[in-house]
Amino acid sequence: MGHNRMMSLEALISARDAGKADPDVMITLSRDAIARKDAAIKAFAHVAENPVVAATGPLAGVALGVKDIFDTFDQPTGYGSAAYDGHQPKVDAAIVDLARRRGATIIGKTVTTEFAYLHPAATVNPHNPAHTPGGSSSGSAAAVAAGMIPAAIGTQTGGSVIRPAAFCGIAGYKPSYRLLPTGGLKHFAPSLDTAGLFAASVVDVALLAQLLTGRTLAAAPVDPASIRVAVYRCAQLEGADPAMQEALSKAADMAADAGFDVGDIAEPEAMAAARDAHAALQEHEAGLACGPDLARHREFLSQRLVDAIERGQAIEPAAYDATRKLAKRGRTAARGLFGEVDILLTPSAPGAAPEGLGSTGDARFNKLWTLMGTPAVNIPGFFDASGLPLGIQVVARFGQDQVLLAVAAALERAFRA
Amino acid sequence: MGHNRMMSLEALISARDAGKADPDVMITLSRDAIARKDAAIKAFAHVAENPVVAATGPLAGVALGVKDIFDTFDQPTGYGSAAYDGHQPKVDAAIVDLARRRGATIIGKTVTTEFAYLHPAATVNPHNPAHTPGGSSSGSAAAVAAGMIPAAIGTQTGGSVIRPAAFCGIAGYKPSYRLLPTGGLKHFAPSLDTAGLFAASVVDVALLAQLLTGRTLAAAPVDPASIRVAVYRCAQLEGADPAMQEALSKAADMAADAGFDVGDIAEPEAMAAARDAHAALQEHEAGLACGPDLARHREFLSQRLVDAIERGQAIEPAAYDATRKLAKRGRTAARGLFGEVDILLTPSAPGAAPEGLGSTGDARFNKLWTLMGTPAVNIPGFFDASGLPLGIQVVARFGQDQVLLAVAAALERAFRA
Repeated sequence: MGHNRMMSLEALISARDAGKADPDVMITLSRDAIARKDAAIKAFAHVAENPVVAATGPLAGVALGVKDIFDTFDQPTGYGSAAYDGHQPKVDAAIVDLARRRGATIIGKTVTTEFAYLHPAATVNPHNPAHTPGGSSSGSAAAVAAGMIPAAIGTQTGGSVIRPAAFCGIAGYKPSYRLLPTGGLKHFAPSLDTAGLFAASVVDVALLAQLLTGRTLAAAPVDPASIRVAVYRCAQLEGADPAMQEALSKAADMAADAGFDVGDIAEPEAMAAARDAHAALQEHEAGLACGPDLARHREFLSQRLVDAIERGQAIEPAAYDATRKLAKRGRTAARGLFGEVDILLTPSAPGAAPEGLGSTGDARFNKLWTLMGTPAVNIPGFFDASGLPLGIQVVARFGQDQVLLAVAAALERAFRA
Repeated sequence: MGHNRMMSLEALISARDAGKADPDVMITLSRDAIARKDAAIKAFAHVAENPVVAATGPLAGVALGVKDIFDTFDQPTGYGSAAYDGHQPKVDAAIVDLARRRGATIIGKTVTTEFAYLHPAATVNPHNPAHTPGGSSSGSAAAVAAGMIPAAIGTQTGGSVIRPAAFCGIAGYKPSYRLLPTGGLKHFAPSLDTAGLFAASVVDVALLAQLLTGRTLAAAPVDPASIRVAVYRCAQLEGADPAMQEALSKAADMAADAGFDVGDIAEPEAMAAARDAHAALQEHEAGLACGPDLARHREFLSQRLVDAIERGQAIEPAAYDATRKLAKRGRTAARGLFGEVDILLTPSAPGAAPEGLGSTGDARFNKLWTLMGTPAVNIPGFFDASGLPLGIQVVARFGQDQVLLAVAAALERAFRA
């Protein structure tokens, strides 16, 4: 374990476009890798038996893993819960259909925690199987990190894209809210639930985003001197592991060395207050969205999930409205902040993946950005003393996904230099 | 036909709370009415065979019709499409579960147009069966208007709550965006899809909203002198039928007579532009949300729906982003507008329900408010020369649902005086 050679989406697409890799061969590559590796990693909830391989389309030959929180008409969809064992939706989720229309092959369903909440699943971290891969998009991140597939889809409601990407040492991209469609996703907190993407590198994840959406998102060269980067000085920074603090400091230095205009910026109070509002906002919405499951399938749900749904149902509408007001104030403050800087630099998580599979780790560095709807990218490249990945997160203004991905790719190069 | 005695939710709840009506009796009342009337009206896609009747809860004894675009675990859910014949979801939609937790009885699934879009269904207008009941919440509005049930749930993406309520002469309430949960609703355009409520009168629909959500929404007395009401002078007014123009003018006079501070206000250009952006925004989202159905069930879809989905899939992301920008500018203008007035007065539709069942009517007076996310209420009370209802719509600032319902109830009284 430890060193898994990852599949580069960019390299695969280039080879395909140069006539050196047939879509069928590309898919077989992933099928073989899954067959060899997944017994140990447990990243897949289901692997397609006879996957359709498109001959054409921008994603033809791309073996895409889909978090098992999205519906698929041709593969069972369990939402990480025994309540949905053998569940077979009639149609795909919107993003799955979109991927197929672009030529992608849905190679399998990747493991999600129960309803994409906190109760962990069996997937292990490819860098060390005694450690969590993070959650809730555990399987998507681990399957890419283990070199089984070049690309995967996940979701983030708290920190479920950025955190597992960081723990698994790959690129994770949580787009601006609603950039990717969420129809056919089992919702937990609809105003937060955001579809996101995983690939080996930032360049790969940006290319995936472009080929999937038709938007101009593939990482383009940037003039670093024109980009104001700031380390985001939130109170949570003090609680980060020393190794992470050091990585963040190095990342800022490397960004400056690469020519970026690097500084610091304090967290506005309204944004700190918005972060604090995330939990109640999420739980009230989960009380509604998962209420039907509590009513019908309580015996199949973990106690942790039952408790969260019940706490959510006990939150009065006025208290929920107050959290939405705090979120709105936070978004106003964020717009002001992004008048002063272009890119925020923060940890993706307090440290490397914690030992054990009992917890998927801590979303304290993620949930604010999910609530703000701002795009975020995990940049891999740093490691702690034991060789576990440490993720650096960059964040930009709502809608500035293209700039964010371009800067993230430039920083990724700088971190590797 | 013509004169259907409607069921008053307020009267039923009062009788129940006074010990004069048992929940079982209340439900039987509706079951009997459905058995007598629905063969002619065709408002129900399915009627519950042995509906559970709760003994307690704020909505105990309330026979609730649920638009068949929402999932129900115990009744087939067809979304108005042969593609979903016999479809049986595993769990309820969030709002259905919420209603059950409050004690409501889901008496049946009311007819929706195909995927809540424009292709009409068989439901007729209880005031004249040769006329459309409006759509897409056709069955919900007709079932209340025909006196079969005291309350129903629907959805609005363009004008699908306010328009059928107007055509059927009942109260319709489209709340602020996300006031009611939409999990388990078959989405057409997620950023527009809004759950709404129907009842015989504004007082009834406000009471329903309060008992369902736990929010303070039941119509309370207002001081009319403190409320600035303005007729909304959009360009669409000129195309309204003379009978509707006359009704609107009378409504304004009656509001003034009732003591409200009544004036006129011009439509800001940014709001007119936002209205024009609605169609492309809706279609792009429908291209994604309904793409999976096009891929799997094309042969079951109407040509009109297929065309809309394909048009939507052909809209480039940049064009979609442009519509979202226009919507955002419109919302900013709306906030400015609601600094000058509290309540806008507009038609709910260009006129009474058109003859024939080939079209569900025109949403030109509705789609702007769906896009703005602002709450809207149809107030019944006016009729054209042939006795068909004409609906007056009131609109308030986002989040001002309580004031809106209170003013709407006061105006309803004024219109009846």
